[in-house]
Amino acid sequence: ILGMFRMNFPTSPVPIVMWHGIGDTCCNPLSLGRIKEVIEKEINGVYVHSISIGHGFAKDAESGYFMPPNKQIEIACEQLRSDDNLKNGYHGLGFSQGGQFLRGLAQRCSDPPMKTLVTLGGQHQGVYGLPKCPGDSKKYCDYIRRLLNHAYSNWVQRILAPAGYWHDPLDEPTYKKKSKFLADINNEVFINQEYKQNLVNLEKLVLVKFNNDTTVQPKESSWFGYYKPGSLVIQRLNETSLWIEDRLGLKKMGDRLVLLDTDGDHLQFSEEWFVTNIVRPYFK
Amino acid sequence: ILGMFRMNFPTSPVPIVMWHGIGDTCCNPLSLGRIKEVIEKEINGVYVHSISIGHGFAKDAESGYFMPPNKQIEIACEQLRSDDNLKNGYHGLGFSQGGQFLRGLAQRCSDPPMKTLVTLGGQHQGVYGLPKCPGDSKKYCDYIRRLLNHAYSNWVQRILAPAGYWHDPLDEPTYKKKSKFLADINNEVFINQEYKQNLVNLEKLVLVKFNNDTTVQPKESSWFGYYKPGSLVIQRLNETSLWIEDRLGLKKMGDRLVLLDTDGDHLQFSEEWFVTNIVRPYFK
Repeated sequence: ILGMFRMNFPTSPVPIVMWHGIGDTCCNPLSLGRIKEVIEKEINGVYVHSISIGHGFAKDAESGYFMPPNKQIEIACEQLRSDDNLKNGYHGLGFSQGGQFLRGLAQRCSDPPMKTLVTLGGQHQGVYGLPKCPGDSKKYCDYIRRLLNHAYSNWVQRILAPAGYWHDPLDEPTYKKKSKFLADINNEVFINQEYKQNLVNLEKLVLVKFNNDTTVQPKESSWFGYYKPGSLVIQRLNETSLWIEDRLGLKKMGDRLVLLDTDGDHLQFSEEWFVTNIVRPYFK
Repeated sequence: ILGMFRMNFPTSPVPIVMWHGIGDTCCNPLSLGRIKEVIEKEINGVYVHSISIGHGFAKDAESGYFMPPNKQIEIACEQLRSDDNLKNGYHGLGFSQGGQFLRGLAQRCSDPPMKTLVTLGGQHQGVYGLPKCPGDSKKYCDYIRRLLNHAYSNWVQRILAPAGYWHDPLDEPTYKKKSKFLADINNEVFINQEYKQNLVNLEKLVLVKFNNDTTVQPKESSWFGYYKPGSLVIQRLNETSLWIEDRLGLKKMGDRLVLLDTDGDHLQFSEEWFVTNIVRPYFK
């Protein structure tokens, strides 16, 4: 009888937590603010939380660049824990670097639990190169690039967020030893069973790659593909030791790991594509 | 014969200059990067320049908040002058505070010349209130609000961009005397004929108001409407002394001044609306 009683009431929709990319902020009306409205229009009564790191827009934008991923994930975990609306779990939606940050969060912060994680143009195997330098200043770009030449120095790992997922395929030993974020969440050095379990516990892990992505280098990183160690030849997820040894549990997920692609440059998608391919199948 | 010769060649499209709002950056793929693609898809071969203040994303985002409008306009003017693609003129497209900043630019920087200016959710008569404090931190919001209590102090005018268009209707004399940006570009104290002429020289001035705007207070500011001096009663543009005395030349513009409105909250519009109502009629 209790079961029937419950069935008579519609369950409230699973909340959604978004994490923005570099150069963006939690609540920009033209970007994540718009995405939030699209989701709310499609899922009646849904609660959407957009992660903001630091106090206010300017700080949030700056943190995307200059706060190490580990620290950002720590802050995000506390932020989600203190939001009562999320206590029964939520779906994650990560944009660009927000994709691997949300995955790190899922692995390190299982309370409240993440149900399904969707990443759009994430860099799950990191990046090697900065083909489109953000901003328009040559001087600034040169500065960032110069810093990334020393990406594995402790001090650069401490001050530049992308250094946390800088992945030099020509020097894998140094990457594994020195990368304080990506090598850790990808179980490169040792297998953290907690990470593996938390990832396998996801209902679905949906990875979207943009076929004409000129920002993520290489774009295959959105699907856990990358350069073959010691070379600049691309290998796909199922050719990597991550998959073969199933160090993260991705193989174990079976068809709950979903690889989607779409034409277009980095994060370029229409509202219709987003509703049809993401919101309806995975968030509703 | 020369005329015919010329007519056989398609003229290249007028370039477009965009200016982002607070909390956004020049080249965010989800916001202005997307808008740029929409414009480029619609107008074959068009050149789009998105203004960035300061070096790189983080600085650009920060400047939106903490660099006074006058300084930002000075930098933007130099930036446009040094871009060869703009030397024969351009259309302006301003988002939120980028709207009044581009108008200020048109008035103060006629070389290269702006042809048509479109502002989306601009605050041409300023704001009085901060109903939606950006970011999620109460502490930060309280800080900004406290600063705005002293919006007309020289030091706040120097460090907080929105102080430049803070408009206290209950104390118009202080606003006129102390506002270093808005009172100046609105010809509040004396009529700068240069400003008036440059504005009248625009081919079109298109002001878009969002009917459900909960960010711009009052939303009528997007159409040069505001609180009646000394009160909190809204008056429309044609009831203001700005219009009656035609201090800015808006009346003189006749039907080249276009007031558009659309339903939705601040900057919430569909791609279809944007193409149909802005790109095709005003930029093509």
